[in-house]
Amino acid sequence: MKSRLFAPGPTMVPEETLAAVGEAPMHHRSPEFRALYQEVTENLSYVYQTASSPLVFSSSGSGAMEATVANLFSRGDRVAVVEAGWFGMRWRDICKAFGLEVLSYSVPREEGTDADDLASWLAEQGDVRGLLLTHSETSTGTFHDVQAAARKVKDKNILFVVDAVTSLGVHELKMDEWGLDAVVCGSQKALMCPPGLSTIALSEKAWAAAERSDLPKYYFDFRANRESYEKSSQPRFTIATSLVKGLGVSLRMIRDEGIEAIVERHCRLGSAVRAGVAALGLDLFSRNPNNAVTAILPPKGIEVEQIRQALLKEHGIRVAGGQGDMNGKIFRIGHLGYYDRGDMLTVIGALEAVLAKLGVPVEPGRAVAAVQEGWGH
Amino acid sequence: MKSRLFAPGPTMVPEETLAAVGEAPMHHRSPEFRALYQEVTENLSYVYQTASSPLVFSSSGSGAMEATVANLFSRGDRVAVVEAGWFGMRWRDICKAFGLEVLSYSVPREEGTDADDLASWLAEQGDVRGLLLTHSETSTGTFHDVQAAARKVKDKNILFVVDAVTSLGVHELKMDEWGLDAVVCGSQKALMCPPGLSTIALSEKAWAAAERSDLPKYYFDFRANRESYEKSSQPRFTIATSLVKGLGVSLRMIRDEGIEAIVERHCRLGSAVRAGVAALGLDLFSRNPNNAVTAILPPKGIEVEQIRQALLKEHGIRVAGGQGDMNGKIFRIGHLGYYDRGDMLTVIGALEAVLAKLGVPVEPGRAVAAVQEGWGH
Repeated sequence: MKSRLFAPGPTMVPEETLAAVGEAPMHHRSPEFRALYQEVTENLSYVYQTASSPLVFSSSGSGAMEATVANLFSRGDRVAVVEAGWFGMRWRDICKAFGLEVLSYSVPREEGTDADDLASWLAEQGDVRGLLLTHSETSTGTFHDVQAAARKVKDKNILFVVDAVTSLGVHELKMDEWGLDAVVCGSQKALMCPPGLSTIALSEKAWAAAERSDLPKYYFDFRANRESYEKSSQPRFTIATSLVKGLGVSLRMIRDEGIEAIVERHCRLGSAVRAGVAALGLDLFSRNPNNAVTAILPPKGIEVEQIRQALLKEHGIRVAGGQGDMNGKIFRIGHLGYYDRGDMLTVIGALEAVLAKLGVPVEPGRAVAAVQEGWGH
Repeated sequence: MKSRLFAPGPTMVPEETLAAVGEAPMHHRSPEFRALYQEVTENLSYVYQTASSPLVFSSSGSGAMEATVANLFSRGDRVAVVEAGWFGMRWRDICKAFGLEVLSYSVPREEGTDADDLASWLAEQGDVRGLLLTHSETSTGTFHDVQAAARKVKDKNILFVVDAVTSLGVHELKMDEWGLDAVVCGSQKALMCPPGLSTIALSEKAWAAAERSDLPKYYFDFRANRESYEKSSQPRFTIATSLVKGLGVSLRMIRDEGIEAIVERHCRLGSAVRAGVAALGLDLFSRNPNNAVTAILPPKGIEVEQIRQALLKEHGIRVAGGQGDMNGKIFRIGHLGYYDRGDMLTVIGALEAVLAKLGVPVEPGRAVAAVQEGWGH
């Protein structure tokens, strides 16, 4: 039986990428690696839709989130964090760890952020240096409208910081056009690589803030890393060259497909899987679902773990459970990155079979037909 | 022509390890990955010769150096740094970035640290919270006697912090027996993996210091990472699972060979390459060379870059140049990790041919014979 990863990260990785990752490591100071690093950086600019050069670190996405806080803010700065799930809380925890004053704007986890409500709340908070939010909240499968929120803060003296870890390469994201100041991503999501690299793009406003920041940093020092790249297209420290090589392959595939086509594909993926879920009589957790990960409530009387274990045992399919206090309450199907219609047929077809075996009344084939319909023409 | 990496990192990686790195990524929350992570941690304890459980991060060795400073010390703490090259200076820079008061003990780069002199100097410095040094200084090829220095501070209230990035798995290092408090390493050195992972082992004294530290950290928070491992054998955040898989394979090879045999092999590797260099009439940069990397002065009238380029072009061999102000003054042959006698014959044989072609009077075969003799019985 094949092993199939339907988690919201790590995600499936193309074989061409894996082959590159498994090659003998390049030396990080060789001209060949510099050329690759430059190509990767330029292709990341394309994905982020920015004229700036994104930074790449050996770390998880959370490392890049910390890097953003440590470089853009100063001790005692007041920042607003949109808390609508596990990863919104992570922004809060990082800001607190670095001695910032955090104002929390809570959004029910089932719902997306309403930009008008957020703007009204922000207006009452006085001076705020940054607004940090999560574009696609991986823990709940909820979409938060970053573009609408960005419009509200565009002319204010606020740094707009976005966790796009599971939205970049999934949902439309136009860094420069929307006026985003810092956008964080990780390699193991829609960038179709194994985990271990994080990426960050920064606006001019963010770079100016980095000049003023007094928080301690060394490894994640944005300015020192930019200097190294601008001087010689090199990473500052030894980077995970094997993963960079893989990222190079995946980014070439992303450019070939085109970012608009990729966003459109994820739109279909989300629509297809939601149609399948509905046809199975199951409810989504989110009322404003994103196209990266679909969070599903188990049917009455069935435990989440029964479904997850049956999918794994009988179909080799690994889906995620819930994080933190959502553990046992939802299961999550990841479909960001290297996924297509056939994968959605597989996962919904398997879910249909598993539910039937667990005694849930399902009509064989109906959910799979719904996937086809949800995918569209 | 084959490509042969003789840099002090990234180093050569066994094919079995590369094959594992190139497999489809494991999910970091799966039982299979937990079992692997536990095995890797236990095998790292073996390499470090400690009863404690080393931590693993997705980062370069410099990230782990920063982590050590941020977790063990507090703002304004006075620490002593042994500066004897590029990586000693890195300890200094990290400590300064985190607001520590740094007392620098300078050692000429050609020489090893004299433990008695260091102890006398330390005794004059008053209250010092930490002593940070480099076991094998990669930039100069110099060995610093950590064991002797450790004896001098063992009973003092000083945290003894060691950069063992290019010494662990090369030179004898007995973390618990010697009373070392924090020992940092990276995957792309003698651990025979691609770059992207760092490892840190900590003493009980270091863990107690971590309880008191007031410096900001999140991603590299030791206590939170230990909690995650102790609770469920998992990394706290998504780690570079592909690299961990590779590290698992390499660590099994390390256990099979045995740490004493590995130290002995590196002793022969160092001795063999130094014998070859001497037979070529070249001088070492260091008067107290380590067995990880051999730093060599070019013959009079020959540029370092001529040698490096000829080795690369004619033999596919990449050796390192000098770092910082050592650029152009030395070249460095790395031989830590997955190297054997045959590799030393290759690199010295190639160097012999290259020097002859550059007009240096060498007797063909003599240096290669010296390698055999230097290797010993």
